[in-house]
Amino acid sequence: MFVPRKILEKKLQSMLTEDIGQGDITTALIVPASSVAEATVIAEQTGVIAGMEEAEVLLKSLDLEAEILVQDGKKIAPRSPVLKITGNTRTILSAERTLLNIISRMSGIATTVREAIEKIQRANFKTRVACTRKVAPGLLYFDKKAVLIGGGDTHRLHLDDMILIKDNHILVAGGVKETLEKTKKSSFSKKTEVEVTNAEEALAAAEAGADIVMLDNMSPEEMRHVIGLISGRAKTEASGGITLDNVREAAATGVDIVSIGALTHSSKALDISLELEPQSVRLP
Amino acid sequence: MFVPRKILEKKLQSMLTEDIGQGDITTALIVPASSVAEATVIAEQTGVIAGMEEAEVLLKSLDLEAEILVQDGKKIAPRSPVLKITGNTRTILSAERTLLNIISRMSGIATTVREAIEKIQRANFKTRVACTRKVAPGLLYFDKKAVLIGGGDTHRLHLDDMILIKDNHILVAGGVKETLEKTKKSSFSKKTEVEVTNAEEALAAAEAGADIVMLDNMSPEEMRHVIGLISGRAKTEASGGITLDNVREAAATGVDIVSIGALTHSSKALDISLELEPQSVRLP
Amino acid sequence: MFVPRKILEKKLQSMLTEDIGQGDITTALIVPASSVAEATVIAEQTGVIAGMEEAEVLLKSLDLEAEILVQDGKKIAPRSPVLKITGNTRTILSAERTLLNIISRMSGIATTVREAIEKIQRANFKTRVACTRKVAPGLLYFDKKAVLIGGGDTHRLHLDDMILIKDNHILVAGGVKETLEKTKKSSFSKKTEVEVTNAEEALAAAEAGADIVMLDNMSPEEMRHVIGLISGRAKTEASGGITLDNVREAAATGVDIVSIGALTHSSKALDISLELEPQSVRLP
Amino acid sequence: MFVPRKILEKKLQSMLTEDIGQGDITTALIVPASSVAEATVIAEQTGVIAGMEEAEVLLKSLDLEAEILVQDGKKIAPRSPVLKITGNTRTILSAERTLLNIISRMSGIATTVREAIEKIQRANFKTRVACTRKVAPGLLYFDKKAVLIGGGDTHRLHLDDMILIKDNHILVAGGVKETLEKTKKSSFSKKTEVEVTNAEEALAAAEAGADIVMLDNMSPEEMRHVIGLISGRAKTEASGGITLDNVREAAATGVDIVSIGALTHSSKALDISLELEPQSVRLP
Amino acid sequence: MFVPRKILEKKLQSMLTEDIGQGDITTALIVPASSVAEATVIAEQTGVIAGMEEAEVLLKSLDLEAEILVQDGKKIAPRSPVLKITGNTRTILSAERTLLNIISRMSGIATTVREAIEKIQRANFKTRVACTRKVAPGLLYFDKKAVLIGGGDTHRLHLDDMILIKDNHILVAGGVKETLEKTKKSSFSKKTEVEVTNAEEALAAAEAGADIVMLDNMSPEEMRHVIGLISGRAKTEASGGITLDNVREAAATGVDIVSIGALTHSSKALDISLELEPQSVRLP
Amino acid sequence: MFVPRKILEKKLQSMLTEDIGQGDITTALIVPASSVAEATVIAEQTGVIAGMEEAEVLLKSLDLEAEILVQDGKKIAPRSPVLKITGNTRTILSAERTLLNIISRMSGIATTVREAIEKIQRANFKTRVACTRKVAPGLLYFDKKAVLIGGGDTHRLHLDDMILIKDNHILVAGGVKETLEKTKKSSFSKKTEVEVTNAEEALAAAEAGADIVMLDNMSPEEMRHVIGLISGRAKTEASGGITLDNVREAAATGVDIVSIGALTHSSKALDISLELEPQSVRLP
Repeated sequence: MFVPRKILEKKLQSMLTEDIGQGDITTALIVPASSVAEATVIAEQTGVIAGMEEAEVLLKSLDLEAEILVQDGKKIAPRSPVLKITGNTRTILSAERTLLNIISRMSGIATTVREAIEKIQRANFKTRVACTRKVAPGLLYFDKKAVLIGGGDTHRLHLDDMILIKDNHILVAGGVKETLEKTKKSSFSKKTEVEVTNAEEALAAAEAGADIVMLDNMSPEEMRHVIGLISGRAKTEASGGITLDNVREAAATGVDIVSIGALTHSSKALDISLELEPQSVRLP
Repeated sequence: MFVPRKILEKKLQSMLTEDIGQGDITTALIVPASSVAEATVIAEQTGVIAGMEEAEVLLKSLDLEAEILVQDGKKIAPRSPVLKITGNTRTILSAERTLLNIISRMSGIATTVREAIEKIQRANFKTRVACTRKVAPGLLYFDKKAVLIGGGDTHRLHLDDMILIKDNHILVAGGVKETLEKTKKSSFSKKTEVEVTNAEEALAAAEAGADIVMLDNMSPEEMRHVIGLISGRAKTEASGGITLDNVREAAATGVDIVSIGALTHSSKALDISLELEPQSVRLP
Repeated sequence: MFVPRKILEKKLQSMLTEDIGQGDITTALIVPASSVAEATVIAEQTGVIAGMEEAEVLLKSLDLEAEILVQDGKKIAPRSPVLKITGNTRTILSAERTLLNIISRMSGIATTVREAIEKIQRANFKTRVACTRKVAPGLLYFDKKAVLIGGGDTHRLHLDDMILIKDNHILVAGGVKETLEKTKKSSFSKKTEVEVTNAEEALAAAEAGADIVMLDNMSPEEMRHVIGLISGRAKTEASGGITLDNVREAAATGVDIVSIGALTHSSKALDISLELEPQSVRLP
Repeated sequence: MFVPRKILEKKLQSMLTEDIGQGDITTALIVPASSVAEATVIAEQTGVIAGMEEAEVLLKSLDLEAEILVQDGKKIAPRSPVLKITGNTRTILSAERTLLNIISRMSGIATTVREAIEKIQRANFKTRVACTRKVAPGLLYFDKKAVLIGGGDTHRLHLDDMILIKDNHILVAGGVKETLEKTKKSSFSKKTEVEVTNAEEALAAAEAGADIVMLDNMSPEEMRHVIGLISGRAKTEASGGITLDNVREAAATGVDIVSIGALTHSSKALDISLELEPQSVRLP
Repeated sequence: MFVPRKILEKKLQSMLTEDIGQGDITTALIVPASSVAEATVIAEQTGVIAGMEEAEVLLKSLDLEAEILVQDGKKIAPRSPVLKITGNTRTILSAERTLLNIISRMSGIATTVREAIEKIQRANFKTRVACTRKVAPGLLYFDKKAVLIGGGDTHRLHLDDMILIKDNHILVAGGVKETLEKTKKSSFSKKTEVEVTNAEEALAAAEAGADIVMLDNMSPEEMRHVIGLISGRAKTEASGGITLDNVREAAATGVDIVSIGALTHSSKALDISLELEPQSVRLP
Repeated sequence: MFVPRKILEKKLQSMLTEDIGQGDITTALIVPASSVAEATVIAEQTGVIAGMEEAEVLLKSLDLEAEILVQDGKKIAPRSPVLKITGNTRTILSAERTLLNIISRMSGIATTVREAIEKIQRANFKTRVACTRKVAPGLLYFDKKAVLIGGGDTHRLHLDDMILIKDNHILVAGGVKETLEKTKKSSFSKKTEVEVTNAEEALAAAEAGADIVMLDNMSPEEMRHVIGLISGRAKTEASGGITLDNVREAAATGVDIVSIGALTHSSKALDISLELEPQSVRLP
């Protein structure tokens, strides 16, 4: 998910613009226009850092220097400095909240993703952890990127990159088989996945050539049974109701992928703060 | 926070555009262009509904009919239908995820806000519950609106609507008093709030004319002591480390406002789904 | 590639805005503000019509009525009326050129795609015709949609929907096998294609698990040989130097897909015009 | 048609953004983030180069160095290197297609314009070659600029820069003379042109003070006759059905300008490619 | 200067968005969401009304009904109702200020333009009154349109619609004649104007084929002399230091056009207000 | 009102883009692409300079060097050089008009604000001078910033930063007291102001807790009377019909703030020009 910096910059600037409104009136009154300072961004909690690339792009676009102290994807101890910022004090303070909101959301997501993966890996399963399209609306890029940094799978990036047949599609077409008949005309460049709710549908999907079969809200026993029936003809994805608490159990069924909406729709921010270095502040 | 629908429409369309990419390739293959249907949006969990106005604006802008079954701010039981949608089936399915992401995020926020308020009200305190600027970046309007619907206080809407002096500002100016000296030149139309970390600073702020004094990360005892010292010369706001678990305790100190970043930075989505009404689907 | 109309509308309006500049000064002087009229859009040449959906969205967004006389994808005879427009005369005349530019570009692309497909089908081959990312910059949606209407395959929609390894990637990684090693970490939701220039690379790609092998600028004999070697382990795509003149010959090699950049980078517009119906013009 | 680079940059970035989608997933997996390289853009065919300024602006905005080897407007031999790029390898590869799409479209247009002009100049005529507003929708600036580089005339840049009366306007006003009566109120800063279909209309236009008379779809004989009648009272423009094959014949009538829609609506791309310099690639 | 409504709508919405910020917090608290009302827009002063078309487009885009009581360009007496609005009360009050800002600016400009024209016409001169590019930045369309409604000439609409050679251009090229030599290559569709400061330059410009000669900051005597020298070979425009006080004197020199920057850069707003009709307000 | 430069840059670029259209055709023909020069921006009149920060951001974004010779807020004598520009000559000339439009509008506003303030200060009153929301639509930031530079008060920045109850709100709610009852639910972070037209309403507002009472169109005697009644319970603002001529008289009533719409809705531009330094122009 590489994006040239200029494209990222545009998204980041619009977030900042929203937060600033017509201007930072507090900083304008208190901090002289030509003051410069150094600041440190500090992760208060343990977790996996994400958003450093986005932070750097935002800061550089504001003519601030940014030195990344911890690379995206690294685990950190509490009170770890993760980023050093140097430049105009007014600009640092005006951008502080937007900067921290981005890093703490992305790091929060990456942290939970990593936890889920580690639970699976510690039990020696190979199941992959994926997110869904249940992101904060408008934050698709940031949420998916954070999942990737955590070690997870982005799943679909939008509605145009995989044929994913869900319950409502099957209802319209009249059945799994009928649906897959219609999607045979799809581009050779796309995979096809089908969401199924029982063994019969799963079998129909695998036989009709689906690349992936999504097992929706099935119990571990049901999943094990269905995965046996499919027996390698398609990949399998478990979805619905999976949490950090039961992800290991889901992986134990032999399913190829578990997808978890809560990774992005109910993400918990990592606690991150910004501190000006007192001795660094230069007033005119 | 009233915004004419056309302005909302623009924000909502850009969320939808991001999710759709170059087009919904699944729906295009399976659902005929002229098919129409009815769909119901259902809240699977109990909670406070928010985002109905946004949903209606989005749907109408897509030429879909929307009938709101539950007004913003109402508490609902699990499996409550909250919205009825009628119109082009392709459009319904293409917009489904974006629609649900908005409603479930806003409802999740409103639900937690309401919980916090009820804990305080049940104990007969008058403390108000406010959010902060720790929103999902880019979602300021939606997160603040959800807090309002839940019954909370939006606090600052961006950096231009109140003088809010924080630790880094005080560091630059050299003290609470010095800072307030500089902000006397601010517009008569704005209030001034100061974040303080101890009794001495709090007193200085109240004496120098701050409208609100923010007590940062103080223990309940400390807060009680400081509120006594200020003795009504300024409003007080408790901030830092406040959760659903200790909000009642914080309110018991007599503080005027408690602000909670987690309301928006670590919001938990309400589980909401969309179901096509099988008998309603019309194929050409 | 279904896109809700509102999203299309935004793209179309920006095209119109560019063409109009600060205003249509000719029409403003000659045509009274309240004049209404009917106009007919006519295809002067035989071809495959495309762009009707886009035309309708543009016209309706301008408060004009649009009646589609020929559906997207239909072949028409010269001088066929394809669209009827009713409404404000100034608006019709100001939008005329943008409207015709869209329809004639899309129809021109669809027409050539159809020709290529018919050449292959008449020879009873099953090879699919695909376009590439060599579109008019900024017109990705319109060019890809026109290919689809002509019956072709859109191939990748942007850089995020398939792993497509090209010569420069192989050069960086040091070989086909090394490259595919690195892309194993890609999302389960994406296919992988590799561009190869000789039999050895082709075999390496197929053996390393590529879903599709792109045979770059190979002669028909070479293609036949390589396709034999791959023997069904991967799909094959012929690319480079394929035109309407040799597409049948390429298909005869048994290749699964032929991709043709010229379909979009050197498309020939279909000749389309707009005529006001003289008797329909109402002046105030 | 000088435009400050920042304005160009914005247009170019939006083309790139469209092509990239949520990110270049191939390059991200294969090319290390810190890799740098040199690349050469090569024109495979003979033609007139255009788009170098646009290329440079795009590349610099992406923090890549660009060295232009062939200036806009120069004719080149096959396999000519035209541009040298140095910088981050990921960025080069992600921008490759958009860059080439721009250069090859603009160069293709400039090449055909130059051919038309040379046919006229070799026969010692002074007729100017102009394009029309039949551009790829959204690419007005790029298509017009390419015509200029090829040596052609841009004609109107949008609907606001000349009064250009066409058939439908005359139909509404009731005749050439009536139309010109109404456009006398136009700004002193604009010229007036009238499209006519016969000698009578042409004469009426010239006598009523039109600056330019456009002879629509007339045979060479008709044009010669009409130009004689006008006898210098207005400039003349031949339009409709003019191609590279008959442009010399049209010019021979003594017409001042020939305008050719196909220059932009059916432009043929020049074949341009980008090659990483193998020995230049630096991996971390 | 006809622009389809949808294009206008976009400009108007962005003005409204800026004024509203995150929402109209006053109206949201006081006015019930479903309240409807009628309002009248009243011109408090005498003047020429402009901006009615823009007002209607803005209001309709907000789902409000708008009845124009006075057409653009009409002179009105003090306290004239000019517009009737019906619809959602919250929307009316939130849009009030933006609406009035547009109408009062445009009407103010139109009023002054009309005054200048009437001074000239009352003295029986035929000189035209034009504005310049000295508009409020970003308001080009609105300022130029208001001039047009007042009866004035828009002059250039932007830098692409006429060759206008100013002092700095002449300085670079080395003289009037040298400059005009270079602009002979300009498109046949554009006129050429030259700004001159003395008789010699004026003569050089007229002889070298300039369509219009701009007499910069000349006294009436000088102008009369120069116009005599040019003797019809080019149109003449007086510019610099012209006001309502001396416009009649300038016109008396026989100059074809007078251009006045103050019409738009120092425009005086017409006093316009909006009143809710008390008996029309419906509360739920 | 501090805004990071990148955000300003975006607003400024869109103003420039509007003025340039498809390109500066005059400069492109006359000035060689690689020419560089120095230019001086000169204030022709005495006044208060504003817009230097905006000018610098615009120029730097265009890769021009800018040296500010007079800081924002300084008073200058006629013919003062205020800004030195160095760089590409084409870019300087293409941006000249937009640059001057910004500086002359902002300086004009700042100059009038300063005049009003000085009239009050010379009479030893402490009344503050504020602007209103009657700005040029779309120029809110620039107009408010200019007022600030002149020494004035920005008043509300948009509809979201203060509760400001106006006549129409009172009409809907049924009275001043009823209105203030409803706005008690407003955020603790906002002040509340009420517009009143007589002593009774003023008293009601002050007693119900309004922070500021706006005295609408009252005579000095009335104001004095009302201010006496309020006797410090709320701040007072005089609004309506206040001009440079009577501002001293208004201040003499003891009112805290006078607000003047004409500062921004009928601002007079300061005369500013740009001159290339003849000896600095380098041609290739």
